[in-house]
Amino acid sequence: MTEQSKRLATASEEALWRIFTVPEAPDSTLSIIEQNISQNLAGFLRESIVAVEKPLWQIERDFQAHQIPTDPRFVSDYAEQLMQQLVAHSVHTAAPSFIGHMTSALPYFVLPLSKMMVGLNQNLVKIETSKAFTPLERQVLGMMHHLVYGEGESFYKKWMHSANHSLGAFCSGGTIANITALWIARNRLLKADGEFKGVAKEGLFRAMKHYGYEGLAVLVSERGHYSLGKAADLLGIGREHLVPVQTDENNKVRLDEMRRVAAELQSRNIKVMAIVGVAGTTETGNVDPLHQLADLAQELGCHFHVDAAWGGATLLSDKYRQLLSGIERADSVTIDAHKQMYVPMGAGMVVFKHPSSAHVIEHHAEYILRKGSKDLGSQTLEGSRPGMAMLVHACLQVIGRKGYEILINRSLDKARYFAELIRQHSEFELITEPELCLLTYRYVPAEVQAAMQNASAERLQKFNELLNGLTRFIQKRQREEGLSFVSRTRIQPAQYHRHGTVVFRVVLANPLTTDQILQDVLMEQQQIAAQDHEYLPKLLQLARDSAA
Amino acid sequence: MTEQSKRLATASEEALWRIFTVPEAPDSTLSIIEQNISQNLAGFLRESIVAVEKPLWQIERDFQAHQIPTDPRFVSDYAEQLMQQLVAHSVHTAAPSFIGHMTSALPYFVLPLSKMMVGLNQNLVKIETSKAFTPLERQVLGMMHHLVYGEGESFYKKWMHSANHSLGAFCSGGTIANITALWIARNRLLKADGEFKGVAKEGLFRAMKHYGYEGLAVLVSERGHYSLGKAADLLGIGREHLVPVQTDENNKVRLDEMRRVAAELQSRNIKVMAIVGVAGTTETGNVDPLHQLADLAQELGCHFHVDAAWGGATLLSDKYRQLLSGIERADSVTIDAHKQMYVPMGAGMVVFKHPSSAHVIEHHAEYILRKGSKDLGSQTLEGSRPGMAMLVHACLQVIGRKGYEILINRSLDKARYFAELIRQHSEFELITEPELCLLTYRYVPAEVQAAMQNASAERLQKFNELLNGLTRFIQKRQREEGLSFVSRTRIQPAQYHRHGTVVFRVVLANPLTTDQILQDVLMEQQQIAAQDHEYLPKLLQLARDSAA
Repeated sequence: MTEQSKRLATASEEALWRIFTVPEAPDSTLSIIEQNISQNLAGFLRESIVAVEKPLWQIERDFQAHQIPTDPRFVSDYAEQLMQQLVAHSVHTAAPSFIGHMTSALPYFVLPLSKMMVGLNQNLVKIETSKAFTPLERQVLGMMHHLVYGEGESFYKKWMHSANHSLGAFCSGGTIANITALWIARNRLLKADGEFKGVAKEGLFRAMKHYGYEGLAVLVSERGHYSLGKAADLLGIGREHLVPVQTDENNKVRLDEMRRVAAELQSRNIKVMAIVGVAGTTETGNVDPLHQLADLAQELGCHFHVDAAWGGATLLSDKYRQLLSGIERADSVTIDAHKQMYVPMGAGMVVFKHPSSAHVIEHHAEYILRKGSKDLGSQTLEGSRPGMAMLVHACLQVIGRKGYEILINRSLDKARYFAELIRQHSEFELITEPELCLLTYRYVPAEVQAAMQNASAERLQKFNELLNGLTRFIQKRQREEGLSFVSRTRIQPAQYHRHGTVVFRVVLANPLTTDQILQDVLMEQQQIAAQDHEYLPKLLQLARDSAA
Repeated sequence: MTEQSKRLATASEEALWRIFTVPEAPDSTLSIIEQNISQNLAGFLRESIVAVEKPLWQIERDFQAHQIPTDPRFVSDYAEQLMQQLVAHSVHTAAPSFIGHMTSALPYFVLPLSKMMVGLNQNLVKIETSKAFTPLERQVLGMMHHLVYGEGESFYKKWMHSANHSLGAFCSGGTIANITALWIARNRLLKADGEFKGVAKEGLFRAMKHYGYEGLAVLVSERGHYSLGKAADLLGIGREHLVPVQTDENNKVRLDEMRRVAAELQSRNIKVMAIVGVAGTTETGNVDPLHQLADLAQELGCHFHVDAAWGGATLLSDKYRQLLSGIERADSVTIDAHKQMYVPMGAGMVVFKHPSSAHVIEHHAEYILRKGSKDLGSQTLEGSRPGMAMLVHACLQVIGRKGYEILINRSLDKARYFAELIRQHSEFELITEPELCLLTYRYVPAEVQAAMQNASAERLQKFNELLNGLTRFIQKRQREEGLSFVSRTRIQPAQYHRHGTVVFRVVLANPLTTDQILQDVLMEQQQIAAQDHEYLPKLLQLARDSAA
C-alpha cells in the first residue's frame, strides 16, 4: 500500500465510522427534511409529492442502475435525490381527499415512536432479542382477543403470558394472518392419529391417504380476499378447492348456497376444512352472516375463520360492533391494525379463540425457541420481526376505547352521509350501500338513468358497457390530476343481472376527510365526465334512442 | 344529550383531532426522547436500558391488563410509562459488547429515513399505493440479483422493470424468503401437465397422484435453519421430509451423505424437490460446498436454493466473496438486509436466477394485481407491505460497495482476531473456527484442557457434561450482569465424538466492537467462571483424578 492509498483508506474508514457514531447535524438536508415531517407532516406530504402524475416508465428511468454503486455518498446528497426521485412520485395516502385506499392519515405520535422502534431494533422472534417487547406483544394480542371474544379476567390471567400458549400471532399483515389461520385449521384437521404422526410431520399426501379424503376445501364468499387463494396454493389445498360461494343482493354470502356446495363436496369425499366469513369485503365492505356461518361450521365440524382484516376495527365502536355479531364464535379472526386502527403499515394480527390453537404449528430449535421458553417465534409463521406491536400498544393506550368509538363512528357515519349525497345527486348512482365505511357508486347522467329504468336486459347491458368505459375514464383522469383519488373495481351487482360493472370504490376511514371534500369529489367527477368524448356521447345517444 | 355531555364529547373530539393534526410540541416528553435518540442514539440506549436484568415475570406485571383502556391518554404520559416499562427492559442489541446477536449498531441516517418511510406510509402491494416505491424496490432486487448472479446490462434492462417478471421478492424476513423459494420449487416441480392443472390449482394430493410420487423431500445440512422446517410443514411436504444431512468436521454438509440420502429416497419413490445450501449456518457460520451442491442438484434435476440470510452480505466484499463461490448457480438465494447489511429489522429478500421463476406462484385479483400491471403483490407471499426497500436502497447508496467492503472485511478479520485471542488464551477453547464472522468457543480451565488431552471417551463425556453446565452458568450470569452478551447454543462437534456440546456463540458484525471489548469479554467470563461453585470444583477434581 502506498502512503497515499493508506491515507485514502483511513479517510474512508473514518467516513464510515462517522455514519455509525456521529448523528446527523441539525442543519443537514436530512435533518431539515425530518424537522419538516415532525412539524407539519400534512404540509410536507402536500408540498413534497407532486400533484400531477408522472407516468411510471418515466419514473423507472431513475431506477435503472443494476449495480450497487461503488463509491459511498454523502447522506445529504442522497436525501436530496430521494426527495426528487422517490418522495415526489410516491402516493399521498394520507390526503383527506384520497378516499380510495385503506390507508389513512396517521396520528403524529406514531412518528417519533417509529423512530424509537427502529433505534431499539428489537427482534421479536425470541426473548433474548426483545425482552419486554415480548410481554408487550402478548398484551396487545390479549387485548385484541378480548375485543373479539370478551373472555373473563381469569382467562387472560391464565393464558396471556403462558409459555406454551398464544392468544394470537402478530404478523406483517393480513395475508400472513389468514395463512396462519388456515395452516392451523389444516393441521388440526389432519392431526396425529394412531400411527399417523400428523400432516405437519408426514406431509399432506400421507395425511390424505390416512384420513381417506379425496381433497380438502375452504368455503368463502365470492368476495373473499385474494390472500385466501394464496393460502390454498401454499398449503397444498389447491386454488380450485377454495370454493367461491355466491353472494346475495347485499354482497353477503348465501347460506343456502354454501350448504349446497358443502353437501356436493362431501358427496365427492372432499372434506370441508374451513369456512371463512368475511367481515368487511375489500370491494363492497359487507359483512357475511357470521352467526349462520358459525352454525354451519359447527354442523360440518370444521374450522371457522373470520377475515376481518379491514372491518375488525369496527369492534372498537359500541354503536356499530353488532354489525360483526357472531365473530366471537370464530376459531380465529384476522385484524389489521394498519387499516382502520391508524397504525402504520406492517401490523397484522390473527387471534385464536383457543389458547392452544397454535400447538399444531409449533416448532423449536436448539439455540432459540427452546421448549418452555416464552419466545414468540415458536408459534408464528414469520421468524425475525420488528417491534411493531409497540405502535399498536401506543394507539390503544393513547386513543383508548372512547377515542376509537368516535373515530369509527365518524367513519361509518360519513359513509352514510356520502351515500345520501350520491343518492340525492341526479347524476350519480349508488351501487352498493355502506354497511361499514366502504361504498361503491358511479357517474350516470340523469337522462341515462331515466332511460335505463325501462330498458330491456340487452339494452341494459349495452348501457353498462359504455358506463364501464366512462367510469374507467373518470377514475383514471381524476387520479392523474392529483386533487383527489377514488379507486375502482369491477363487481357483479344483483340489480344488473350480475353483469360485470365497473364502479368507484371509496373507503372513508380518514378522520380528516370533511363533508366538503366529499362534495368536491363528486363535483370534480362530474366535470371530468364532461371531458369524455368517447363514451358519454354514445351513452346520451343510446338514451335518446331508448326514449324514441 | 345534556349540555355537559355535549361539551365533553366536543372536548374529546377536539383532543382526538389534535393527535392527527397538531405535531408533538418540541418540549413534549416524546419530542425530548426523540431528540435524545437523534443526537446520541448510543447514549440513549445505554442510559435508557437498565443494565441489570429484571426477571421476565416481573416485567410481565406491567403488561397484565387485558382490556383496551377506556379513556384516551396524554402522549407524554404514555411516553414516560413506555420508557420505564418497555424501553428500560428491552435489549441493547446495538451495544458493541453485545456480540451474541445478528443485530448490530445501525447507521444514523436510517433513523430519519425510517420516520420518512412511516410518514409516507406507502403500501407496496400495488403501484396505486406506492408508485415510485415500486421501481425502487425492483431496483434494489435487481442490484441484489446482480450481486449474486452478475448478469450483464441487457439482462437487467430487459427484466428489472418487466411487468410479468421479478428478479426477487422483498419480504419481512428470511423465513418468508425461504418459504417463497421452496413454494416456487414445489410448484415448478408439480406444474401443469396435460390434463393436470398443476399443484397451485389442484392441490398436493392430486399432484402426487398425477406424478406418481410417494413423497417430496428437501435435503439440507443438519445445521439448516428452523424456517425450513416451517416451510416443509406449511407447504404440505412434511417436516420428516426435510431431511437433515450430516456435516463434516467443518460443519459443512457432506456430499457423499447427501448423495446417499438422495438415492435412498429415490428408491422409495420420494422425489427430491430441492437441495438447500447453507451460506452461513446460524450456529457455526459455515458455508456449504455450493458448487458441489449445484452439481448434485443438476444431477437430480431439482431446485437449488441457497439460504444466505445471514452470510449473503459477504458477497459485498471482494476479499471474501469467494467463500460463497457457487452461489451464482443457485435457482434462488435468500439474503436478509437486516443482518449484515446494517438495515433495521424487517428487510428480507429472495432473488431468483430466472426472471420467470415466480410465475408458478402468481396470483391476480379484480381490483388490484390485474394482469399486466407492475403491482409487486402479484408475485409475493405477503400482501400489504411497508416501503422497507427504501432503507436497503439508502444503505446501498450511502455505504456503497467500497464501504461494505470495509465493513464486511472488518467483521471477518475481527472474527479471526478473536479466534486467535481464544486460541492463545490458556483458559479458553475454540470450538469452531470462524469462516465468516461467527465462531463458537467455551471456557475450559487450563488443567482441565490438559487432562482432556488423553482422556478416555467415557471420561471425555463426563468432562463435557460438566463443561456444558459451566458454559450455561457463565453465559446466563454474563447476560444478567448486562455489561456484555454472548449467546449460547448446543452443537455436536466432530472432535468430541458428536456429543452435545454447549458453546458460546459470537457474531462479530458490529463495526463498533473493538479489540479491547473482545479482550474484556474473555476477562469477564473468566471472572464469572470463578464464581461458579457447582461445576468448576467438580471439573477440577475430575482433572486431578485423571492426572492421578
